[in-house]
Amino acid sequence: MHHTLSVTVQDKPGVLARVASMCSLRGFNIRSLAVGPIHHAGLSKITLVVDDVEVEQVTKQLHKLVNILKVSELDPNESLEREVMLVRVSADPGTRREVRDTAEVFGATTIDVGANSVTFELCDHPQRLTDFLSLVAHYGVLDLVKSGRIAMARDGKAKTRSTAGEQ
Amino acid sequence: MHHTLSVTVQDKPGVLARVASMCSLRGFNIRSLAVGPIHHAGLSKITLVVDDVEVEQVTKQLHKLVNILKVSELDPNESLEREVMLVRVSADPGTRREVRDTAEVFGATTIDVGANSVTFELCDHPQRLTDFLSLVAHYGVLDLVKSGRIAMARDGKAKTRSTAGEQ
Repeated sequence: MHHTLSVTVQDKPGVLARVASMCSLRGFNIRSLAVGPIHHAGLSKITLVVDDVEVEQVTKQLHKLVNILKVSELDPNESLEREVMLVRVSADPGTRREVRDTAEVFGATTIDVGANSVTFELCDHPQRLTDFLSLVAHYGVLDLVKSGRIAMARDGKAKTRSTAGEQ
Repeated sequence: MHHTLSVTVQDKPGVLARVASMCSLRGFNIRSLAVGPIHHAGLSKITLVVDDVEVEQVTKQLHKLVNILKVSELDPNESLEREVMLVRVSADPGTRREVRDTAEVFGATTIDVGANSVTFELCDHPQRLTDFLSLVAHYGVLDLVKSGRIAMARDGKAKTRSTAGEQ
């Protein structure tokens, strides 16, 4: 079981380094990390996925760092979670149709075709990405890149373990 | 102008911290960072977007770090680039139709509707995400989370400035 933390930070040099270093020094296992700017100028959001047993400690330590404005834990049942991946699957003209049929069921988009490969884009819940990958694995995965999970609370749903403090 | 680097790393504690700290210490401006596991057990890929003037220095410094296996620069004309975002836009029942029409043009998916908001998922080229955001900005953006850019070379396209070395 793992937990998703949404961390609002100021766009200052070194803020990502401090978050990553803190987790590394304390031995926290980061399962996924995604970072991007938000709608307020000068702010970014880091989406962190950490292990169950570590979530309280990670939250506590994050609050001690400078340039961290807010840390919210997102309840998986009351939040929207997405991840995007690009995956290149081995497929010759004989198996291409079969591979693309599998992809179609998952709503994956074909974005590149080579002599012996097809490349798909799939944007969905992280678990669906895992399911798709295990289905195409036996054809052979030639290349893969994943974005890490992003998440947002559903409209009107309270966030748990949410705390705020300007530093 | 900015450049996209695809960095293959070993899944060892602190590797992300070392990458982020090196960039921070040397004053490199990370415009975007996404990290996720790949198809080889024990390896992950970090997609970094950095400024034009810094790309050579960043590449050189990355090679000096432990647990970094490969650094490739991806030519934007010969690579597939994607990013996913969740964006909650202010919309009452009167403006909801209008907001959703705009979203439809961009291929954004409605994933949540509240009394005064609509939440969209958009997965596309990073520039398209920026274009969509500037179009819906005047309705009011209530919440936003972005994954950071991921990228992969098109099939058969040579990568530039690519280097490999087990460390």
